[in-house]
Amino acid sequence: MDNTNRKFSFASDYMEGAHPNIIKRLVDTNLVKSAGYGSDEFSESARERIRKACGCPDAEIHFLTGGTQTNATVIDALLPSYQGVIAPDTGHISLHEAGAIEASGHKVLVLPHTLGKISARQIEWMLKEYQDDCNHEHTVMPGMVYLSQPTEYGTLYTLQELQEISQVCRKNRIPLYLDGARLAYGLACPENDVTLKDIARLCDVFYIGGTKCGALFGEAVVIPQKGRIPGFFTIIKQHGALMAKGRLLGLQFEELFTDDLYEHIGESAIALAGEIREAWKQCGYQLYFENPTNQVFCVVDNCRLAKLAERVEFGFWEKYDESRTVIRLATSWATREADVKELIQFLRVL
Amino acid sequence: MDNTNRKFSFASDYMEGAHPNIIKRLVDTNLVKSAGYGSDEFSESARERIRKACGCPDAEIHFLTGGTQTNATVIDALLPSYQGVIAPDTGHISLHEAGAIEASGHKVLVLPHTLGKISARQIEWMLKEYQDDCNHEHTVMPGMVYLSQPTEYGTLYTLQELQEISQVCRKNRIPLYLDGARLAYGLACPENDVTLKDIARLCDVFYIGGTKCGALFGEAVVIPQKGRIPGFFTIIKQHGALMAKGRLLGLQFEELFTDDLYEHIGESAIALAGEIREAWKQCGYQLYFENPTNQVFCVVDNCRLAKLAERVEFGFWEKYDESRTVIRLATSWATREADVKELIQFLRVL
Amino acid sequence: MDNTNRKFSFASDYMEGAHPNIIKRLVDTNLVKSAGYGSDEFSESARERIRKACGCPDAEIHFLTGGTQTNATVIDALLPSYQGVIAPDTGHISLHEAGAIEASGHKVLVLPHTLGKISARQIEWMLKEYQDDCNHEHTVMPGMVYLSQPTEYGTLYTLQELQEISQVCRKNRIPLYLDGARLAYGLACPENDVTLKDIARLCDVFYIGGTKCGALFGEAVVIPQKGRIPGFFTIIKQHGALMAKGRLLGLQFEELFTDDLYEHIGESAIALAGEIREAWKQCGYQLYFENPTNQVFCVVDNCRLAKLAERVEFGFWEKYDESRTVIRLATSWATREADVKELIQFLRVL
Amino acid sequence: MDNTNRKFSFASDYMEGAHPNIIKRLVDTNLVKSAGYGSDEFSESARERIRKACGCPDAEIHFLTGGTQTNATVIDALLPSYQGVIAPDTGHISLHEAGAIEASGHKVLVLPHTLGKISARQIEWMLKEYQDDCNHEHTVMPGMVYLSQPTEYGTLYTLQELQEISQVCRKNRIPLYLDGARLAYGLACPENDVTLKDIARLCDVFYIGGTKCGALFGEAVVIPQKGRIPGFFTIIKQHGALMAKGRLLGLQFEELFTDDLYEHIGESAIALAGEIREAWKQCGYQLYFENPTNQVFCVVDNCRLAKLAERVEFGFWEKYDESRTVIRLATSWATREADVKELIQFLRVL
Repeated sequence: MDNTNRKFSFASDYMEGAHPNIIKRLVDTNLVKSAGYGSDEFSESARERIRKACGCPDAEIHFLTGGTQTNATVIDALLPSYQGVIAPDTGHISLHEAGAIEASGHKVLVLPHTLGKISARQIEWMLKEYQDDCNHEHTVMPGMVYLSQPTEYGTLYTLQELQEISQVCRKNRIPLYLDGARLAYGLACPENDVTLKDIARLCDVFYIGGTKCGALFGEAVVIPQKGRIPGFFTIIKQHGALMAKGRLLGLQFEELFTDDLYEHIGESAIALAGEIREAWKQCGYQLYFENPTNQVFCVVDNCRLAKLAERVEFGFWEKYDESRTVIRLATSWATREADVKELIQFLRVL
Repeated sequence: MDNTNRKFSFASDYMEGAHPNIIKRLVDTNLVKSAGYGSDEFSESARERIRKACGCPDAEIHFLTGGTQTNATVIDALLPSYQGVIAPDTGHISLHEAGAIEASGHKVLVLPHTLGKISARQIEWMLKEYQDDCNHEHTVMPGMVYLSQPTEYGTLYTLQELQEISQVCRKNRIPLYLDGARLAYGLACPENDVTLKDIARLCDVFYIGGTKCGALFGEAVVIPQKGRIPGFFTIIKQHGALMAKGRLLGLQFEELFTDDLYEHIGESAIALAGEIREAWKQCGYQLYFENPTNQVFCVVDNCRLAKLAERVEFGFWEKYDESRTVIRLATSWATREADVKELIQFLRVL
Repeated sequence: MDNTNRKFSFASDYMEGAHPNIIKRLVDTNLVKSAGYGSDEFSESARERIRKACGCPDAEIHFLTGGTQTNATVIDALLPSYQGVIAPDTGHISLHEAGAIEASGHKVLVLPHTLGKISARQIEWMLKEYQDDCNHEHTVMPGMVYLSQPTEYGTLYTLQELQEISQVCRKNRIPLYLDGARLAYGLACPENDVTLKDIARLCDVFYIGGTKCGALFGEAVVIPQKGRIPGFFTIIKQHGALMAKGRLLGLQFEELFTDDLYEHIGESAIALAGEIREAWKQCGYQLYFENPTNQVFCVVDNCRLAKLAERVEFGFWEKYDESRTVIRLATSWATREADVKELIQFLRVL
Repeated sequence: MDNTNRKFSFASDYMEGAHPNIIKRLVDTNLVKSAGYGSDEFSESARERIRKACGCPDAEIHFLTGGTQTNATVIDALLPSYQGVIAPDTGHISLHEAGAIEASGHKVLVLPHTLGKISARQIEWMLKEYQDDCNHEHTVMPGMVYLSQPTEYGTLYTLQELQEISQVCRKNRIPLYLDGARLAYGLACPENDVTLKDIARLCDVFYIGGTKCGALFGEAVVIPQKGRIPGFFTIIKQHGALMAKGRLLGLQFEELFTDDLYEHIGESAIALAGEIREAWKQCGYQLYFENPTNQVFCVVDNCRLAKLAERVEFGFWEKYDESRTVIRLATSWATREADVKELIQFLRVL
């Protein structure tokens, strides 16, 4: 391949296959026979490891294949028909799930975000507005809270923030659900002070993302309090989210939770994203905002954008103004240091 | 391992991983970067091969992860809100999808099966009953037909039968949808006279099953007439059925449709199922009914059933009478001849 | 009007307006101002009277406008997403609600009827089949029972039968819901031994039909145990079933529950239906089956059917055989004795 | 009654029964027998009159009982599963229908309102944003537009504005639906320049409100182009919105469309609302904003609010600031001039 024309791809964090340990395991176990639908030994072993990592020995754990599917299934399972889910207006469920939440009958009740996050105070305000509205029986009742960690803006809730949100939820007896599609990149951040155990303690349901964090695919739904969602297995099946060869999910999470792989797999991505941020600023360009995880949001003038696009694949984020654009560069566990170095060199001559 | 105590498993046809070619491909391409959501080159190449195999060069092809998901997504996409789907009472959607069809708002309109099949005449009758009912505007309108090939009873529609059903559907302007979860086992049958090209010609939508037919997972939805379902990509996303790393589906179907693998992969399973049937009868036992594919339905008296269960894993099908039970033994592309031979020996001394 | 050509109409029991007391009340109160959505004094007074008639002083009572709407709203409110409703295959929800139950995501799990009824034993069997099915997590869980009293065949559950069904439901912790669209005609039957108080004691939710029983429209949902359905007011609104001028429902039920009107309003209809049955048999014709309420099911040969249709409006029920048809003649609280006498005379010369 | 303590009620426009002509008609026709479900002669006659008033001789017209029901039914009928409805953030469907639109699977795509209205430009922008978003297949497709005339803020679209919106919809091939819950109050406004014929020409579906405009209840859905919504009768039934005694709806609309009653019935309400507005300003108080229809939005300081509440029933709208509140006073076709005069006198001494 002629490297001078090669394109660097930072378009997303789900462009490669899986961590080599997972691939090896797939190969090694390929012809082992196992029971279907998650009742196999690989899944049971993965569950045991996740329970341990989360410090919740009684947790119920289910493996699903993708994020939208997981969000739609969990939210439908948690809400009765007359309730909706509180979410930031930038939440994945608010914007990029093609109406999957509404398709199962529930309204997404949006709060304005601050860099992808919402606060305990905002949630409390929405719950109070509902209570104070004398017509509230004619409106959708807020019945749960949806957060993502890291958020769609690559930002992180602090432990303090998460505790406050959890407290509001518990005071108001509504469940807190956390979407951890990119959780490994949060856990790998030096700035992060929220552990898996914290999440398990503060949330009613959450999922540990595999698809973007080293697996081929797969998300692990953790319900710290066993039995919290009656009929959940059937609900998963009804949502078309039950994998026949559940072992495939089990063995991937078994590997991800061997030797703390999950808690470290995002480290290189975090370091490399940091290098890109530094380089970007050193070149005199503007970051859209600072954030600590594996997504870098850059403001580019449209001339340079065209040149950049010749060599680099990135994500379009939004228009900044008439002459500038916000783009997203994402690193992943699989991003090679050499590629980042070349990218930086290219930025310098842009 | 002490073989004398080893259990033979014939419990289902989704107990192993994938065909070695697929595993090899997964390994070889693991770190290749590719675009998401099915827009990658693996998927495009797989589509091209499937179009060729089906003789429909303009077909639209989408890859989903599992059967229930595929059925729910396609049926929801084909039906407006006031219509239901005609299906045999033994159809997978009628019984074993946890109400997924109803969850998207549609009634399953069941017809009594004959060994898993329904006939053109029955469908015509149901459509006529609807037309003749002067209250039909108060009832669910039959809006499409669902079949599976092979059926849940391992039987096959003949080309003649499928043509007749297709004709009734076209005359009544309702789409015909075929669930090919086990299609490879149908195509591999000497008794079968229905080709992929026939199916593509006679159905409006069908899916080629991967999960049970050599893939790790995955089903290929084929829409011979491109654009037949507006918004289908978004509908897939809304159903949580869009895989981020669509390449995983693409590369599996690329392998399955290389060198006609898909049309031959079920052959050994068919042969071995035939051997089990013969042995069963030679031992003086009764088959529940004869069928030509990879599922064998046997009647066992309950004493022998207990002994059988000590060495063999099988599927419980239904009670035959007070003293006898119907069980299912399934072979797959991965079933070893040696295991079948041992099983037969064990049957002889049962 | 030239009476010799006048048609007698026995087509249904919802052909006229309302009982004169209701019309008078409507006129008298027309310009009284009242609060909306059922919080008015008429509704409160009606509730109080119904509570008394049903012997359940704490009951929660909601007024809706029609039967299908009421069934869909109550069933959706009682079932979580993974459960379905057990009903006779002839139930209104099974056949004649245009898929309203499925539209809210729930499967109707049908049992074969005997003259419109199902038995405690059948329900118990279905619950046991579910429990015994080792794949039951892949199927729809039976989550409640739907009955109608009288049934769509004009038959009645005895107190004994209803007690047995209630017992099975309570033992299995699933709610029993009774559709009383024609309840007044049951209560007015000499053969009936089930009182409103019995129904309130044995069911978890039921509705007292107004539309077919003397009101212009309206059904009163009774929930004997207050708070049994959280969020029910909002669920009613969400189903589009909340009437702005709820007073219209309130004042109708207030009248129906003044001086035991509801328990007597069906008496003339029952007596007249009995006369039609006797006359039919005396003329040497066949009843499809005997039943004690306001619907008469007759077998007519197709020659006479044509002649009958010249003078009488009736409901088509079903084909009996090639040469005969089953028709339904319905009386109501508004049926005039003179019309019945003329009908009988006409039958004699048919 | 001691008038000095009597409360004046301006709480809503659905506090009384119906126009005397309607009541008279109900009484006169009470025992006439008629066919069910809208196939009666009253309904047919009402349809013919509405077609004439709207200048669309081929229009399909259906009568439903209430507004939320009508909105949910029409929107579900117009949208395929992957599309949502564009609406102002203050629209009835956005806020006060308890999630009825989401319950049938559709997202409400909100645009910020200006006194209850949205503009053609905003709609065009939203459609363009969707088209320009390279990820739009992952989002809900805007599939129709919802407006109300008058709006929830009592404001009116001008003919020019409505034409522009219609043009954008037609250019983009999405239907325009108009909620006319209070349409009579718009038509009766001197400021209004939009006729029924304009609405019929510019919209794909709209409803003529009865509940708030002189009927006991009822809304007439007009589909100018017959057959525009396949299966609509069944969809109405499925939504529980089909009235058994459809004649009740028919005869009300027959009266409302006799001698142009509907176009004049709101006139007194408009005049009286104008008097209240003038008096309010003359007393030195502030209107929240000026609008021309039957709802008056007033800013009151909280001291006066308490005094006002002793004699007047009104609607709470929202907090204006810490010391002031916005309230709504509504007049209707039934509001008595004497009550308004007394109200005004009371305001003067407040």
